[in-house]
Amino acid sequence: MVKLYDTTLRDGTQREGISYSTDDKLKVTERLDDLGVDYIEGGWPGSNPKDIDYFQKVQELSLKNAKITAFGSTRKPGVEVKDDANVKAIVASGVEIVTIFGKSWDLHVTDALETTLDENLAMIEDTISYLKEQGLTVFYDAEHFFDAYLNNKEYTLKTLQAAVDGGADTIILCDTNGGTLPLKLKEIIEEVKSKVDLPLGIHAHNDSDVAVANSLVALQTGVSQVQGTINGYGERCGNANLSSLIPNLKLKKGIDVVTDEQLAKLTEVSRYISEVANLNPPAHKPYVGDSAFAHKGGIHVSALMRNPETYEHLKPEIVGNSRKVLVSELSGKSNLIYKAQEFGIELDKDTEEITQVLDKIKTLEHQGYQFEGAEASFEILMKKAMGTYQKLFELEGCRIITEKTEGLTPNSEATIKVKVNNQMVHTAAEGGGPVNALDSALRKALIEFYPVLEEIHLIDYKVRVLDGNDGTAAKVRVLIESSDGHESWGTVGASTNIIEASWQALVDSIEYGIKLKGDN
Amino acid sequence: MVKLYDTTLRDGTQREGISYSTDDKLKVTERLDDLGVDYIEGGWPGSNPKDIDYFQKVQELSLKNAKITAFGSTRKPGVEVKDDANVKAIVASGVEIVTIFGKSWDLHVTDALETTLDENLAMIEDTISYLKEQGLTVFYDAEHFFDAYLNNKEYTLKTLQAAVDGGADTIILCDTNGGTLPLKLKEIIEEVKSKVDLPLGIHAHNDSDVAVANSLVALQTGVSQVQGTINGYGERCGNANLSSLIPNLKLKKGIDVVTDEQLAKLTEVSRYISEVANLNPPAHKPYVGDSAFAHKGGIHVSALMRNPETYEHLKPEIVGNSRKVLVSELSGKSNLIYKAQEFGIELDKDTEEITQVLDKIKTLEHQGYQFEGAEASFEILMKKAMGTYQKLFELEGCRIITEKTEGLTPNSEATIKVKVNNQMVHTAAEGGGPVNALDSALRKALIEFYPVLEEIHLIDYKVRVLDGNDGTAAKVRVLIESSDGHESWGTVGASTNIIEASWQALVDSIEYGIKLKGDN
Repeated sequence: MVKLYDTTLRDGTQREGISYSTDDKLKVTERLDDLGVDYIEGGWPGSNPKDIDYFQKVQELSLKNAKITAFGSTRKPGVEVKDDANVKAIVASGVEIVTIFGKSWDLHVTDALETTLDENLAMIEDTISYLKEQGLTVFYDAEHFFDAYLNNKEYTLKTLQAAVDGGADTIILCDTNGGTLPLKLKEIIEEVKSKVDLPLGIHAHNDSDVAVANSLVALQTGVSQVQGTINGYGERCGNANLSSLIPNLKLKKGIDVVTDEQLAKLTEVSRYISEVANLNPPAHKPYVGDSAFAHKGGIHVSALMRNPETYEHLKPEIVGNSRKVLVSELSGKSNLIYKAQEFGIELDKDTEEITQVLDKIKTLEHQGYQFEGAEASFEILMKKAMGTYQKLFELEGCRIITEKTEGLTPNSEATIKVKVNNQMVHTAAEGGGPVNALDSALRKALIEFYPVLEEIHLIDYKVRVLDGNDGTAAKVRVLIESSDGHESWGTVGASTNIIEASWQALVDSIEYGIKLKGDN
Repeated sequence: MVKLYDTTLRDGTQREGISYSTDDKLKVTERLDDLGVDYIEGGWPGSNPKDIDYFQKVQELSLKNAKITAFGSTRKPGVEVKDDANVKAIVASGVEIVTIFGKSWDLHVTDALETTLDENLAMIEDTISYLKEQGLTVFYDAEHFFDAYLNNKEYTLKTLQAAVDGGADTIILCDTNGGTLPLKLKEIIEEVKSKVDLPLGIHAHNDSDVAVANSLVALQTGVSQVQGTINGYGERCGNANLSSLIPNLKLKKGIDVVTDEQLAKLTEVSRYISEVANLNPPAHKPYVGDSAFAHKGGIHVSALMRNPETYEHLKPEIVGNSRKVLVSELSGKSNLIYKAQEFGIELDKDTEEITQVLDKIKTLEHQGYQFEGAEASFEILMKKAMGTYQKLFELEGCRIITEKTEGLTPNSEATIKVKVNNQMVHTAAEGGGPVNALDSALRKALIEFYPVLEEIHLIDYKVRVLDGNDGTAAKVRVLIESSDGHESWGTVGASTNIIEASWQALVDSIEYGIKLKGDN
């Protein structure tokens, strides 16, 4: 009976740095539908042309589970509902369900809306009853509900009564400023339940770091609709995180809000949306983060090797994630052995090799390398330390020139001289930037020897400045992810010179790819 | 009566990517003491030489509030306590308070420790009583307490009784795997309280996204010690976040865990520790995040301009943070007016200028620029749109060459030709990387005209790859932060060529700095 209401595409876009195109929004809609949410709040048709465009195009999608809803506000003060531009845009959007927010808090009515308390009540009731007359289902978002209730209980309850009188189908209690703590929230919801005879929903924000807990507590107190966003995206500290709430409800409360198959898509959907949002995937978020099941402590890893239940509250596969064992200067030999096994290398706990590899890792980490996320470089490193690695070519030298004339797009060119199979190749290529030019030149030099390079592409290139205090003289770490269309692998380089760091990661990436494809 | 127990320096270092030097740990210790925590868990003396070094040096600090504690495990199975290497290291560390963790969960005793259930009880009791005999205060961390309790209540309570019998001063209930939800946790703690007559503590992990809520609920259920880390750092999804718990307790529960002055240092301490950890400050974390009080929605900003309480659950200054108004394609004219006021520019809501600036921002954001964090570039942009900006020099052209020979550190050189005050300057410089060389050459060309450049330094240089899918041909955004030792300012550039993007940010940074110092 718990309904999932996703507002990733509306409240979620209030997060700093997020801006979706209509096409992005349509793609996200399909993924949310796959995941099994009940409602997808697509936007606010009254606020901008992009959202109007979305509501037209979304009607052409054939969704499996979800219903699309439109968001909007109550009519403006002193205007007839039917003449209100915002209300008209909602009706024109073609949805069957609308979510209308109204003011619960007397302070907002007087200070933000600048109208009277009575007019606000009329705005709520009029708007809802008008939309009901148009045949729509109406959810009423009681904005700032909890602050309002603590401030002026009597007036706040009147606003809810106005929603009831207007014919609202569900009333959503919003903790808009995110300042309410769980047990207080529980107490207030219990009071409201005894006074309002309509299904209730919860819309929580994370400003006190308890949005997920508030949502859970609300559901355990009899609320039936929960609003949130994937990855907890939203203004300031974000909205209640559906990527945490969904598995919490299904796995820990036994409420089947989604099917097992849908739950197994959770991590993928989370990462897809962060990609569309052009944000790094949230590494440490519960359930879906790349580090959510990452283990660094040597004790933990040796226990996990005996029994995974010892340090994991659930199997990562259930939510489509996977375990990750980290290798670092702090980790023990167990981590290294676990890691080597992943690469098909059998290591013995008490050999000299392990000590050598651990020492080498310590030195390189100190220099700024990081092998978390660069497992291909780690595998190469391990093989080098064991003396079993063979290079595919030798660099003699290279030169990268970038030329800029005011008003023109700058141009980068690389020349390169490498020895492959005892043959010297000297060539050159251009690129959008210096690293791209170098990458192109290296590929050009190698492709006749390793034609499989045609299938290998860089899919991600990340630069992290390690020690910001030195300004442009700082050390940089480059992480490259490559793919052959099936598998992908990460490599790393570090230097004060971005070209050197990129070169190291590029060489590992290309050599690893060629060896993987068996073309050496 | 609530005691704050900080484990940033021990459990916090289990987070992916964190590795502190002894010196880092000492500096962090002083900041935590300034913030007013009661206990600082400095490390695990039995686990590595770095921690032993820390415990020696920390004795030389004169701390104002905090007591240092050492972490360790119960003795190994079948060993006498006085001969156990780990216990000996703890005693040798010189602390007055130790925290000893032991196994609560029968599964762990048999599968991880590989010993008998009775031997585990003896290990707990022996270790604690031995440490008490050495005159130490002993906190007992009941590892995996909640999972253990649900799995085998009887045995779990026996482990607590062993701690009581050994003479423990406080028992800390640990949700080690982070799988427990708030109301279940409350229920279990209530049961334990009726059975164990010792002060209790809570140690929560965030794997279910409720660590802060669990800690709060535990405190409201009569627990008196709360363990956590600054920024919630910790293995997997992290530990309970003290940066959220401290203001929640003080501002919302009225528990004076720190003074007003200490609370005002919270944001600074959070950012300091992320800097020492070499991690980006957590932008969206409650209270301390750079975005915790960031407002993007036009409606919110116009309401905030009337009354800040409308969309903020507290004044940001109380926790040492500040409000941030974002300007983006989604933001309204109110944001722009608010922003312009910050720069001392008076804009009128209905002028043509505002529309022009908003249009320009939309175009630039679409190209990858971002003015959040680059307010100096934004101010320059605004002045350019209003026709009041004057450039300080003209670039004729520049060329950057990086040369790499296998086995040698690569070398970058830049040549530059600029017109300043109708004079042509043509010069060259070297650098650790191409951007550093360009920066040096530009400064060299300008310094005789603007000697104040001597005082202006880049303090941070960030590169973000915007569209990873294009590999090394992707678009990059460069953010530069500069300072004259008193004020700092951010600038931005974006291009597919990193040198072009860096150039744009560099020019804005230098021009802004020179104008700020009045040297033009």
